[in-house]
Amino acid sequence: MVIEVYTEFLAKDAVKAAKRGDLIIVVDVLRCSSTIITALANGARMIIPAKTLREARKMHAENPDYLLGGERGGLKPRGFDLGNSPLEYTREKVFGKTIVLTTTSGTRALVYSRVAKWVLVGSLLNARAIAEKAISIADSEGINISIIQSGTNGKFSLEDFLCAGAIISMLPNNNISLSDSAQAALLAFRHAENNLYVNLMKSEHSKKLIKLGLTEDIKFSCQINLFTIVPLYRSGIITKI
Amino acid sequence: MVIEVYTEFLAKDAVKAAKRGDLIIVVDVLRCSSTIITALANGARMIIPAKTLREARKMHAENPDYLLGGERGGLKPRGFDLGNSPLEYTREKVFGKTIVLTTTSGTRALVYSRVAKWVLVGSLLNARAIAEKAISIADSEGINISIIQSGTNGKFSLEDFLCAGAIISMLPNNNISLSDSAQAALLAFRHAENNLYVNLMKSEHSKKLIKLGLTEDIKFSCQINLFTIVPLYRSGIITKI
Repeated sequence: MVIEVYTEFLAKDAVKAAKRGDLIIVVDVLRCSSTIITALANGARMIIPAKTLREARKMHAENPDYLLGGERGGLKPRGFDLGNSPLEYTREKVFGKTIVLTTTSGTRALVYSRVAKWVLVGSLLNARAIAEKAISIADSEGINISIIQSGTNGKFSLEDFLCAGAIISMLPNNNISLSDSAQAALLAFRHAENNLYVNLMKSEHSKKLIKLGLTEDIKFSCQINLFTIVPLYRSGIITKI
Repeated sequence: MVIEVYTEFLAKDAVKAAKRGDLIIVVDVLRCSSTIITALANGARMIIPAKTLREARKMHAENPDYLLGGERGGLKPRGFDLGNSPLEYTREKVFGKTIVLTTTSGTRALVYSRVAKWVLVGSLLNARAIAEKAISIADSEGINISIIQSGTNGKFSLEDFLCAGAIISMLPNNNISLSDSAQAALLAFRHAENNLYVNLMKSEHSKKLIKLGLTEDIKFSCQINLFTIVPLYRSGIITKI
């Protein structure tokens, strides 16, 4: 069977992909998916995405041993244990912990995806591991693959587009068929791959993070295939497969 | 003044661009804009885009000396003089003529753009000429530039994305600022440019045209900077600037 590979440019397009019955890969390079992957790689037990600050705080009040992480406007909300910087999610802080996470774009894409059976979380940090796991699940379940770019404030974002291209570049060549948007992302990644950091720094979202003094987060999030973690979002929680 | 350069993925996004007051470049590589440019290069007097077959036929009935051109489902409608293949728009057929043209995607993008003061028609065939004219107008009028990809049946199309990248690659480097989508299109074009035909042949729309026996149209439309024609759409008609 030929597996169709799509990529969608906006978080809300996850609804379409879920309706098609596709395996969904949610991508938010800066920084939600990079943070989730790093936290799990450093031994966090699970991540619970929360849509609102209120919901996150409530969950934390009911479970005081949970860590509270996330951002609004790029910065750590009042009273939170952690921001949305993957660099904060060290082994010392997160090992064995459950983390409630609320961010602006990535969390929304996850929520839009939740009716899908298979929702994986991808970034540049785990591009190869995600590509291999996605193809093996899609193959055995007889379903197609949609990579959902979370974007920034409901708009297209360069870094998520390039990450979609990175994941596509790591799929096997046989038995897959790429949509026009998937072809486009692959071409752009091929031109950018030897200079990913320089290219990512040009995105609108990067420029905002640089202004907030968060350049190190961009540098960290550019490291391709640093981890082999495959996060699965199911029944409201994210765990390692 | 810095000129912002945007590219939008769908015909309907022309409305947004027109509201911003941008100069608009409408792109429909396969085949509407390639046909318009070829017709004008071969001496056609003007092109009148029509939204519906009915409207096109009415205009022709009232002006029997006009030529009737266009497509539905990729093919020439009943009773039309010309289809939507740029190769049909030879000097012998179109010199000095007014052509009423109705197509599926490109005509829609033009209609969505019509409230803008400046609407140019671009394709690979005239990428450099369009880039140079657009920057000179944007500069003297103090406005930004939006390249509208017509897409195919309301969906993203690879060939229009690559054409947006081609036009962006021919803008001067100084005093412009590229949106994330403009950066993405530029990266993809840079990787594809030495093999444009092979890359364009992979698009979903190309595959349909190949099935209809129209491979030569794709080959023709891939020729970068074949013409120096800059078509302007204003007050319902398209003429050479």
